[in-house]
Amino acid sequence: VAVLTDLSTTPGAIARAMLAAGADDGAAHVLEHLGGPHERRFSGRLSEVAASDFGDPNLLVVEQPPLPRRSRLGLPDDAYAHRGGQLTKRDVRVAALARLAPRAGGVVWDVGAGCGSVAIEAAGLVGDGWVYAVERDPEQLTYLRVNRQRHRAANVEVVAGEAPAALAALPDPDAVFVGGGGGQLAAILEHAATRLRPAGRLVVNAATLDTVERVRRCARDAGWPLEVVQVAVGVGVPVGTGLRLAAQNPVFILTLTPGTASPHPLALASPATTPEEDQ
Amino acid sequence: VAVLTDLSTTPGAIARAMLAAGADDGAAHVLEHLGGPHERRFSGRLSEVAASDFGDPNLLVVEQPPLPRRSRLGLPDDAYAHRGGQLTKRDVRVAALARLAPRAGGVVWDVGAGCGSVAIEAAGLVGDGWVYAVERDPEQLTYLRVNRQRHRAANVEVVAGEAPAALAALPDPDAVFVGGGGGQLAAILEHAATRLRPAGRLVVNAATLDTVERVRRCARDAGWPLEVVQVAVGVGVPVGTGLRLAAQNPVFILTLTPGTASPHPLALASPATTPEEDQ
Amino acid sequence: VAVLTDLSTTPGAIARAMLAAGADDGAAHVLEHLGGPHERRFSGRLSEVAASDFGDPNLLVVEQPPLPRRSRLGLPDDAYAHRGGQLTKRDVRVAALARLAPRAGGVVWDVGAGCGSVAIEAAGLVGDGWVYAVERDPEQLTYLRVNRQRHRAANVEVVAGEAPAALAALPDPDAVFVGGGGGQLAAILEHAATRLRPAGRLVVNAATLDTVERVRRCARDAGWPLEVVQVAVGVGVPVGTGLRLAAQNPVFILTLTPGTASPHPLALASPATTPEEDQ
Amino acid sequence: VAVLTDLSTTPGAIARAMLAAGADDGAAHVLEHLGGPHERRFSGRLSEVAASDFGDPNLLVVEQPPLPRRSRLGLPDDAYAHRGGQLTKRDVRVAALARLAPRAGGVVWDVGAGCGSVAIEAAGLVGDGWVYAVERDPEQLTYLRVNRQRHRAANVEVVAGEAPAALAALPDPDAVFVGGGGGQLAAILEHAATRLRPAGRLVVNAATLDTVERVRRCARDAGWPLEVVQVAVGVGVPVGTGLRLAAQNPVFILTLTPGTASPHPLALASPATTPEEDQ
Repeated sequence: VAVLTDLSTTPGAIARAMLAAGADDGAAHVLEHLGGPHERRFSGRLSEVAASDFGDPNLLVVEQPPLPRRSRLGLPDDAYAHRGGQLTKRDVRVAALARLAPRAGGVVWDVGAGCGSVAIEAAGLVGDGWVYAVERDPEQLTYLRVNRQRHRAANVEVVAGEAPAALAALPDPDAVFVGGGGGQLAAILEHAATRLRPAGRLVVNAATLDTVERVRRCARDAGWPLEVVQVAVGVGVPVGTGLRLAAQNPVFILTLTPGTASPHPLALASPATTPEEDQ
Repeated sequence: VAVLTDLSTTPGAIARAMLAAGADDGAAHVLEHLGGPHERRFSGRLSEVAASDFGDPNLLVVEQPPLPRRSRLGLPDDAYAHRGGQLTKRDVRVAALARLAPRAGGVVWDVGAGCGSVAIEAAGLVGDGWVYAVERDPEQLTYLRVNRQRHRAANVEVVAGEAPAALAALPDPDAVFVGGGGGQLAAILEHAATRLRPAGRLVVNAATLDTVERVRRCARDAGWPLEVVQVAVGVGVPVGTGLRLAAQNPVFILTLTPGTASPHPLALASPATTPEEDQ
Repeated sequence: VAVLTDLSTTPGAIARAMLAAGADDGAAHVLEHLGGPHERRFSGRLSEVAASDFGDPNLLVVEQPPLPRRSRLGLPDDAYAHRGGQLTKRDVRVAALARLAPRAGGVVWDVGAGCGSVAIEAAGLVGDGWVYAVERDPEQLTYLRVNRQRHRAANVEVVAGEAPAALAALPDPDAVFVGGGGGQLAAILEHAATRLRPAGRLVVNAATLDTVERVRRCARDAGWPLEVVQVAVGVGVPVGTGLRLAAQNPVFILTLTPGTASPHPLALASPATTPEEDQ
Repeated sequence: VAVLTDLSTTPGAIARAMLAAGADDGAAHVLEHLGGPHERRFSGRLSEVAASDFGDPNLLVVEQPPLPRRSRLGLPDDAYAHRGGQLTKRDVRVAALARLAPRAGGVVWDVGAGCGSVAIEAAGLVGDGWVYAVERDPEQLTYLRVNRQRHRAANVEVVAGEAPAALAALPDPDAVFVGGGGGQLAAILEHAATRLRPAGRLVVNAATLDTVERVRRCARDAGWPLEVVQVAVGVGVPVGTGLRLAAQNPVFILTLTPGTASPHPLALASPATTPEEDQ
């Protein structure tokens, strides 16, 4: 990328904006007073450009590595910086993404985004859509920002704050992922349901029976169709010259589709069903 | 889409090409001798256009339904026409796709494609790349073609034939999926490994212990790194007013990365490892 | 077994009592007027003896097949007559028995006993203790009686009736098994808890999330320690020349130990724990 | 227990024999020169008696605590002293016992007995039968002896040595359990099969795919019927005020019944089946 800068949009301003948007801190060059007697060339990292002043007029050249070759879907867990195993594991992550079903141009909320693995992979599926990753924990926010930059997920917007309050300012979502079962779960689901675009869905990953119960109660009370699956994964791990299966803890994935709720009150008496329930 | 046709590229030829490429057999119109005294309008289905002759000059107007809003990833199982439960189930499918890791512009082979669920979803991830779905069973080929059209997977090429023979004519793959454990499994893996592009991978789904053993033996003999996971899914199914978990049969997903095999002969004595093995 | 009968305890009365107690309807002989001029010998099945009158004095000889050689624990599922798969499957059954922990001389209730597999195997563990198998469904009662006789579980008493009403007349239990989640579950647990002998336990097998929730609520409300495990079994089934794993539906086993509940009110605020919880 | 001792079978000899047989080191009393002028009473622990000399004639009185009230089946894992989680876990243990199917009066071998949990529970099922627990690791032998004494499993004989060599001297078994997949597995199974009494069975617990493969190969080569199950258990563990499911690693249980092998050579071409295989 080569940019002829002006007085207000200086190389430093551009570099700072690019870094904030998740660009790599790669090689960058500034050519000052191009073609003039004071022509000067600076070469360094983008962050050095961000911290410097340059004469005008100039040309900013930014080298960015080629985009990753593989699709950003179901990456190995160690592709994400994270706190001791605290991330949505690979196979559970793709199972949740299948139910989020992000559409091109769509808006996804990841509430309690943690290190951001779901948000970042959802971002790869929304194309020019947008993913809002809401997280309150400062340490997780650091991991989230590191991963966002590492995977060039420029369309993930990190929202530091507490749900549901932090959700009010976001655009209406097509799909909402809730990674855990904090005390605000019911409030988050209720807020999200009122904001959901047509045919939208809420997906909750539950590691505890309590979260399963809470989501089921919400669905029952509100008359929302609910789909439940439990995913259990054993990972082959070398032991001596052999391979044993190391079990990951099973996770329940609960999918709520408030918009398809039957308006008929009798429907609420029996378990809600969706067309996908029998698979 | 409106096309002004010429003498060789007639409405019929265009319609036949579109249908062959997986277009919906939707509404189509041909306006003949536009603006002239013989102006005539035909309205019908695309297949009717394909079977008719029209006067020239004309304008072909094809109505195609809007593209599906959601990403074509981890669709519900009943989104695919299939023979009594014989398809790669939703959660196992996305887990396999994660390991196939199709890249934009890449080439994927789906060997023993069955009703095509993996091929079709891989096609959604390769962008302008190409997926070759190889299948020999005539009934499965019918399901495969129906699903390809239903999901507009124009970049899935159906290859009727038997592997490994049918693979010789295909372009070299970045990723190869083998859905089952027929008697040709070893031959298929050996052929695929020689054709694999750099950093390519072979992914095998195994429902039987025998297939697991066969793939492990191939990996051991050839010195290929091997990753194994077992995925077990329980699906919530209504029973009375409650929800029970109906277990799907567990599936082993085996990922071979021949290209990353250690050239050092000693490495073969101990179990091969990949960077992803500990997740 | 040879018995010299008297006027009141006739061969017919003995035969009827033996059959009622679960004896096989095997070969039996009655020798009337032994040694006298009217000596006569009858040979037939025990049920024929039960339905006949004989002269006195006589000798009743009953042939009974040898006792089964193997322990009556974790028998294959097809060792039990049952209605289309409706029984506590082998591995889940032994896992439940481990938690029932029947003691020699103890009393076990099996509430909703179905075809009786748990009751019959518990009976093998209580020695000269007693198992009460409570069941209301007439068809299941038939299976229960057939299985009781087939496995010679003379110390299983079949109680035809509805719980909790039918429990009032039973001796206090050391262990109570509840196989399912009928609408009376809470009432059954509450009644059983008041009747439980010291160190007794209630074990509930739950196939639905609703039963899990109901038991957890009971435990929470009453302050009873609760242990939960989920058991998932895949059974090798031949397919062609290979072996695939056929998944059985996962079952939750919930163990309540009301007697070890902490009397301290604060203990109820946090999740109850038992010494076995971490295994 | 009160014993009038003689000159050779002294209180010390009896005490040593009892301790060696797994008796508790509980209270014991020796009354010397009973009724005579030198009458003297010693009270202490059984181990003190074992280490002392007493005058003759005397009376040895040994107090032993009452037998445990609950059956010794599927005890909680922490009922066994063991090395960091290295034991056959509760639910897998009872599933293996179900397949061992120990009979009253029978002989069971536990090869690679580890801390002895399977041997000790099998011993509770063989009545006056006998269980031989073979183990070579000195540390495991210590755990094994501690557990044998703790659970009063007097009919478990600890055999320090390496299989299959150490098996030659044992009585023929009805059932053989092999807890792991050491390099001698095939040799152990072959030896055990030749020694097995009629209707006997070999049960192997496999944590690795390699052990599964090895056992399947043995079965295939020898034409032995083989039953396979995979048991996966999730244990409820408190987290905050909730309960999450902690997965134990899945275990394969393989049951070989050499004695029921079809003598017909054609039967070996297809997968061997037992009547229990379909459950």
